[in-house]
Amino acid sequence: MKAERHKARQQKLKDGVDAKIAKAQEEKGILLVLTGNGKGKSTSGFGTIARAVGHGKKAAVVQFIKGNWECGERTLLEGAGVEFHVMGTGFTWETQDREKDTAAALEAWEAAETLLKDESIDCIMLDELTYMVSYHYLEVDRVLEALMNRPPMQHVIVTGRACHRSIIEMADTVSEVKPIKHAFDAGIKAQPGFDY
Amino acid sequence: MKAERHKARQQKLKDGVDAKIAKAQEEKGILLVLTGNGKGKSTSGFGTIARAVGHGKKAAVVQFIKGNWECGERTLLEGAGVEFHVMGTGFTWETQDREKDTAAALEAWEAAETLLKDESIDCIMLDELTYMVSYHYLEVDRVLEALMNRPPMQHVIVTGRACHRSIIEMADTVSEVKPIKHAFDAGIKAQPGFDY
Repeated sequence: MKAERHKARQQKLKDGVDAKIAKAQEEKGILLVLTGNGKGKSTSGFGTIARAVGHGKKAAVVQFIKGNWECGERTLLEGAGVEFHVMGTGFTWETQDREKDTAAALEAWEAAETLLKDESIDCIMLDELTYMVSYHYLEVDRVLEALMNRPPMQHVIVTGRACHRSIIEMADTVSEVKPIKHAFDAGIKAQPGFDY
Repeated sequence: MKAERHKARQQKLKDGVDAKIAKAQEEKGILLVLTGNGKGKSTSGFGTIARAVGHGKKAAVVQFIKGNWECGERTLLEGAGVEFHVMGTGFTWETQDREKDTAAALEAWEAAETLLKDESIDCIMLDELTYMVSYHYLEVDRVLEALMNRPPMQHVIVTGRACHRSIIEMADTVSEVKPIKHAFDAGIKAQPGFDY
């Protein structure tokens, strides 16, 4: 009896999912925003890029904030043919010179704009873009325009805390990563190969 | 003046972060839980595995739910030397036979237990494990015991909705991925190379 009830319940769940799948027939480039203060936003974006590459798609990453460490994903993904642009002399927690940062943000954004016009790129990650908008290094209207006019089948992933409301409104899928707890707050060090 | 105020504010932020970094000196294997109903949990886990591999670490994945499609990350990560165990004849939305599913869950869990005793594995992803506990296919105590007794430097990532409270309590870092909106609900199809 228990097994039958379980089966009936699961079937009902499955029917609901199947109905939704039948209804969802449109294909288009998705704008995915991963925001919020929790751990896992950029990592999720890099995972999506890994997935795209695994399917033989062409992908590119523009990183708007660069730490002092080398990021492990970059090694793997560049090896798999992913194009990387990293904001050069620009914003890190170590510099913080408004004029230089703005110039560097603009330069990285121009690389992004070129990708956002290139139909051959299936999936673009704009890592930590949200901060460039929050700090007024980039105008939100310029960002929205490039996103809006991109090739219709091109997927874009935007990551970073406190994503601008207008980008969230334009997005197709938005996940907010909320921190429930973090090892760092318990005195545990960020560790290579896991945290970066 | 504006630039100076900005600099002072950023310096204060940086000082706070630096103080936290100085305090966080412990190194240990992290138990990371990625839960919640939003898009990006497994993808984030796969991103962490990509990162580990990019740093030359040894990583493994046990997938407790397998869709009918091939997952793009698997191609890339297996190519980079990541060991994959996929729950065999077991739970998918297509089957739902309680007895068979339980047997398959146990078999996959035994593979996980072997990995959780293997010091040579730096990072393990237990993808969609939470459902096996929710559906009572696996006893939570058995899961907790294996997690607790694993090699002290081994990182583990658990993904899936509605993670059991006891696993959250044991975890070092927990992120809840909340859906703000999802393209699927707007009638847009799941697309290969992006959604799977």
